[in-house]
Amino acid sequence: MNVNVLLEPGQKGTCEKTVIIIDVLRATSSIVTALANGASSVEAVGSVTRAREMKKDDPDLVITGERGSIRPEGFDLGNSPLEFTSEKVKGKRVVITTTNGTRAIEKFAVADSILLAALLNIDAVTRQIVDSEAEVTVVCAGTNGVPSIEDVFCAGALANGLIDKGYVTDDSARIALATYYRHKEDTGSLLKKESGHGRYLDSIGLGDDTSYCAKMNLHDLVPISLGQRIFVR
Amino acid sequence: MNVNVLLEPGQKGTCEKTVIIIDVLRATSSIVTALANGASSVEAVGSVTRAREMKKDDPDLVITGERGSIRPEGFDLGNSPLEFTSEKVKGKRVVITTTNGTRAIEKFAVADSILLAALLNIDAVTRQIVDSEAEVTVVCAGTNGVPSIEDVFCAGALANGLIDKGYVTDDSARIALATYYRHKEDTGSLLKKESGHGRYLDSIGLGDDTSYCAKMNLHDLVPISLGQRIFVR
Repeated sequence: MNVNVLLEPGQKGTCEKTVIIIDVLRATSSIVTALANGASSVEAVGSVTRAREMKKDDPDLVITGERGSIRPEGFDLGNSPLEFTSEKVKGKRVVITTTNGTRAIEKFAVADSILLAALLNIDAVTRQIVDSEAEVTVVCAGTNGVPSIEDVFCAGALANGLIDKGYVTDDSARIALATYYRHKEDTGSLLKKESGHGRYLDSIGLGDDTSYCAKMNLHDLVPISLGQRIFVR
Repeated sequence: MNVNVLLEPGQKGTCEKTVIIIDVLRATSSIVTALANGASSVEAVGSVTRAREMKKDDPDLVITGERGSIRPEGFDLGNSPLEFTSEKVKGKRVVITTTNGTRAIEKFAVADSILLAALLNIDAVTRQIVDSEAEVTVVCAGTNGVPSIEDVFCAGALANGLIDKGYVTDDSARIALATYYRHKEDTGSLLKKESGHGRYLDSIGLGDDTSYCAKMNLHDLVPISLGQRIFVR
């Protein structure tokens, strides 16, 4: 089986039937957390306007997300995974719109199957891929079309688990693997010092988010995107 | 000072005034070798047709290059650095057209200064940048729009030398740096086993090229592109 990696969503490359989207800071970390805390589903939408329209039609929706890392006016929550508590999301339909992560999910919506990964759930995602023996393309969401080292690291962690099971990798997966090996002993430093977006989040007072998103395998679940909605299977 | 890296030429990013183009397999390795062996200049052109027209106008030109790694009909040399011997190129004007490397050079022709790097001359390039205190963008030529691990490794070797002198790096440079650290002890394996393009060259009988291109710092020179031509300053 093959595992190919796109170091950012615009990179050329083969797109396999199963696509893994990674946006460690913070979209996929937030979605994993929302589902872990009991949200019934999460819907990723491309625009702030769309999220507001949906809320107008259904006031029970929890609309969440960011633009420039900040919560848009009238939104129930921002894009901080720490806001997605059981109290706020349990049993609710959550809508999320973010700059990079949700756009990557929309871009690859043609895939047969889309799974979402973050450091918080990378072992669960790896196990599910191995069990299904799927050919996979891993898409690092990056930041405005530029690779983010924390997403590439997460792709490397996944590639590492798959190579152990006999998967064959392309050059980009091997670059991701090198990034994983260099930083696997200290994901806190990776997100707070190496990552440009992590340093930015720290600088605007969101350091608790980077600390949380650096945790490996806090949640044993795999979000899967079906149609417009993301569930835990 | 900043050092930014584009892991492939299509990646978004700031373009500084000084651009370093890297195509280890094989364009920049061949250009470095041609100049080391006494070529008076090397001209990178985008098409096979253009090279043939130039040869018609000036039969003393040595026209060289590849399409699909193979020498086009009527060309004097292919794109194997081992063909660029003193006997063939000393005192001559060389024209080269390759699939990825020369196209990357053409794409970034707007930069104030373009330097060419390969593993063969990476220390000389690093020294020249440090001496000039230039802000730099490093462009990995890649293969058909996809990152090549050997180019990213070479960018990492350069970033490593610049960080030592106080340069500040972006996420992509740090990804390149991780690739450099993982493979710096064995560039032969990097080019022959890790690199997809290296494995392909080996498979079509060009293994001597990959062995040669894996040599670090065989040549102490920096090719600089001025107008259409590449010289040693």
